[in-house]
Amino acid sequence: MAKDKPTKLRARMPRGFADRGPAELAPTRAMLETIRRVYELYGFEALETPFIEYTDALGKFLPDQDRPNEGVFSFQDDDEQWLSLRYDLTAPLARHVAENFDKLPKPFRSYRAGWVFRNEKPGPGRFRQFMQFDADTVGAPTVAADAELCMMMADTLEALGIARGDYVIKVNNRKVLDGVLEAIGLGGDENAGRRLTVLRAIDKLDKFPVNEIKLLLGEGRRDESGDFTKGAGLDAGQIDALADILSFSETSEFYDDDNSTAIHSFQVSKFSINDKFSEGVNELEEISRLCVGSGYNSSRIKIDVSVVRGLEYYTGPVFEAELTFEVRDEKGRPVRFGSVGGGGRYDGLVGRFRGEAVPATGFSIGVSRLASALSYLKTEAAPEFGPVVVVVMDRDQTAHYMGLVGTLRQAGIRAEMYLGNPKNLGNQFKYADRRNAPCVVIQGSDERAGGQVQIKDLIEGAKAAAAITDNAEWRESRPAQFACGEDELVAKVRELLDHHGVPHGDRLG
Amino acid sequence: MAKDKPTKLRARMPRGFADRGPAELAPTRAMLETIRRVYELYGFEALETPFIEYTDALGKFLPDQDRPNEGVFSFQDDDEQWLSLRYDLTAPLARHVAENFDKLPKPFRSYRAGWVFRNEKPGPGRFRQFMQFDADTVGAPTVAADAELCMMMADTLEALGIARGDYVIKVNNRKVLDGVLEAIGLGGDENAGRRLTVLRAIDKLDKFPVNEIKLLLGEGRRDESGDFTKGAGLDAGQIDALADILSFSETSEFYDDDNSTAIHSFQVSKFSINDKFSEGVNELEEISRLCVGSGYNSSRIKIDVSVVRGLEYYTGPVFEAELTFEVRDEKGRPVRFGSVGGGGRYDGLVGRFRGEAVPATGFSIGVSRLASALSYLKTEAAPEFGPVVVVVMDRDQTAHYMGLVGTLRQAGIRAEMYLGNPKNLGNQFKYADRRNAPCVVIQGSDERAGGQVQIKDLIEGAKAAAAITDNAEWRESRPAQFACGEDELVAKVRELLDHHGVPHGDRLG
Repeated sequence: MAKDKPTKLRARMPRGFADRGPAELAPTRAMLETIRRVYELYGFEALETPFIEYTDALGKFLPDQDRPNEGVFSFQDDDEQWLSLRYDLTAPLARHVAENFDKLPKPFRSYRAGWVFRNEKPGPGRFRQFMQFDADTVGAPTVAADAELCMMMADTLEALGIARGDYVIKVNNRKVLDGVLEAIGLGGDENAGRRLTVLRAIDKLDKFPVNEIKLLLGEGRRDESGDFTKGAGLDAGQIDALADILSFSETSEFYDDDNSTAIHSFQVSKFSINDKFSEGVNELEEISRLCVGSGYNSSRIKIDVSVVRGLEYYTGPVFEAELTFEVRDEKGRPVRFGSVGGGGRYDGLVGRFRGEAVPATGFSIGVSRLASALSYLKTEAAPEFGPVVVVVMDRDQTAHYMGLVGTLRQAGIRAEMYLGNPKNLGNQFKYADRRNAPCVVIQGSDERAGGQVQIKDLIEGAKAAAAITDNAEWRESRPAQFACGEDELVAKVRELLDHHGVPHGDRLG
Repeated sequence: MAKDKPTKLRARMPRGFADRGPAELAPTRAMLETIRRVYELYGFEALETPFIEYTDALGKFLPDQDRPNEGVFSFQDDDEQWLSLRYDLTAPLARHVAENFDKLPKPFRSYRAGWVFRNEKPGPGRFRQFMQFDADTVGAPTVAADAELCMMMADTLEALGIARGDYVIKVNNRKVLDGVLEAIGLGGDENAGRRLTVLRAIDKLDKFPVNEIKLLLGEGRRDESGDFTKGAGLDAGQIDALADILSFSETSEFYDDDNSTAIHSFQVSKFSINDKFSEGVNELEEISRLCVGSGYNSSRIKIDVSVVRGLEYYTGPVFEAELTFEVRDEKGRPVRFGSVGGGGRYDGLVGRFRGEAVPATGFSIGVSRLASALSYLKTEAAPEFGPVVVVVMDRDQTAHYMGLVGTLRQAGIRAEMYLGNPKNLGNQFKYADRRNAPCVVIQGSDERAGGQVQIKDLIEGAKAAAAITDNAEWRESRPAQFACGEDELVAKVRELLDHHGVPHGDRLG
């Protein structure tokens, strides 16, 4: 800011980012604590990796590119090497495990909570910075590790106050879908594009009925608006084979408490089954058996062969945590939250660094999404109160007012002195209102001479204001204001806070 | 990873970044909670801003540059605008306040904890990603806001377990130094470079005695190794004037409980004093008066005119929190931690967006640095125990073992089943050791037939192992292992944990 006329900067954020205030942060903090407690109970240990990694360590270079591919924020270090902001917490974990392989206990069980970044087009509710809370078991070949993660997610959601029946953990296995696709002639690198179209169609099963999905698998589908989506171009036999799987998924009573054998009838369905498919089905059977054996029946953890999960690196079981309760949005329309997390087995990810596959499986919670869902469950949250505000009546008594504030704080009561320009008393009261202060402490020269303070109860005052419509009556009754000795200040404020149920002292968050 | 021979990636982190495990994360989490509690008590409210901001909003463009200047990680958005990772939490706060100016209560009192990034040469203990915990009052012109921050820092350090006398909050005022520099003819833009050299010299006062500083202010100084540091080239009169300030700072008994008037003798010292200097001294007087009035004497909050604080944007009072206790490093050498935080008044920072100065002051704690200091205060931290480990004796009993684990977890006991390859029992015990498990639960076919489990107490076992040197004796006595009924599992494990003081249930972190 030199002598030239300063250019006024515009205060703005880049698209896809957001500031967050106390109304959002306090419940999120409580939520993170609960998740952490459950993960710790399951024996997972805290780990934090840095926000910045080498781009190639994140798997974000294509062989024929000299710039990182889409979706990541990248920049070059002073030695010209490409760095990127992490876009999930799994790739950095793989780097950490590979880098410290011999030092770590195996299986290595860790949890990580943190912000991740996607350099994508932002939209409503779609941010370029968001938080994930992951748990991973690296070095466990058994699907018991996958089953355990699903049970832990069920426990986590319930610990967060989501009732049994309001959520479901859906489980599938990449080997099942890959096996079917192979069986109907869609295996091999040359069919990668078509496989993707098929998987995208299957992924829509929670939105459309099976016969609509069949159109997407075949020639294509025209929606109500007349828009046409080109299909995968499968023939009738291929579509029937897939529909067989999907209709099975629709009834989805795979396993129930009685450990029924639905899957076996599934396995002998009319299209030819290969080893990969059978392996996948066996693993699902085992996961289901372990979950049911531990008391998690199919209303909590359910096999669902329509679960796809986008990420390329999954190699076995995949999971998705879905909230099933319905809420109303601001316009009264019913809304389902859907997926609030997911994961799966990624046996190849650590192996990229070691030249040998290292079995690994993990589950990731979308923290912001889940927090937003939880906010709907709270029936009228109690208002959050701000600090007690001591107003400044006499400017030369600042030290004394600060002393009063100090006394309140020492008693564990949130308090502050008004620090703006004290000239206008109205502004001081307006400030106390905006901070949602439970009460205001006032001491003019008369009160000071008598060793007194006035306490104005803003909560009671607001109630009285709602009841009293007449200004004169208001002035006369001076509702909710009383005097007390300076030495009674703490006791009287405490009484007032208790009366209104405002936390203080040890109960202070 | 196509069909070609896969290239093995090297698992490594960029320089200046670090992974953090539970031994570091648990105490840091507790520390952040304590700081937050104190800040809330003072009436500050939670705020989070994004990690990425427009580079110009961070003040990181020089007028003649088309690339962001040094020290920040920057990249271009798809609309070519420059973005940067935040390098502190103050510049984003200024953007937030300016962007939401009319919506916010004023003064606006917020706290923010988060990672910041510096694109600088890393070194030992010098990272490119580190955490700060800030509190700021925006819109408060009075130095009572500055005094309050200093008191809050003193309270925070004591709440963290740092004894009174082991820390000091040093306070200076940029106006004092600027006034002196102006008075000795170093005002104006043309002397900016020399002022910087002078301030750098003064900043060394905690390392060198005054007569060494005088050399740095004059021709220069040769250190023991013979290296020469060029000085600021001041003449004898200028040096004496500054030394007058510095020697005052050295005795530093500015104010004490009796509110002594040392500062007045200071004001009538021999060199010519200007308005800026007097204003600075008056503000320091007021801060001192408010602190002493609230019971914070000069052993806790002390005026010290050698405090410089590097950042260009400070306009008034500046603070520094210093730890004064001495510890020994690994080699037994005495180490002082020095500064663990600081801040000051920056009335111009919000104004960059609004075209008018907005008074603001803040204090920032260096979280990692303070955490490392606190770790020295802990006299032999209690060992952190891992989960109870249920070993897998019979592979086909996995569901049953998971059931045992579930029972322990439901009772609030950290527990897990061994999820690696169960073939080698020795590996399972090795794993339990590495996880620092308090005990291992064992159930072979015999025990299962009898409805029993074996519990092996690893804590007791380790003690016994230290006492017993003879292998045969060890095998015979089988110390610290006992059997109990499956239905007694929870009770017996609880007993064992209580016996060793391992937290569980509600006491679980």
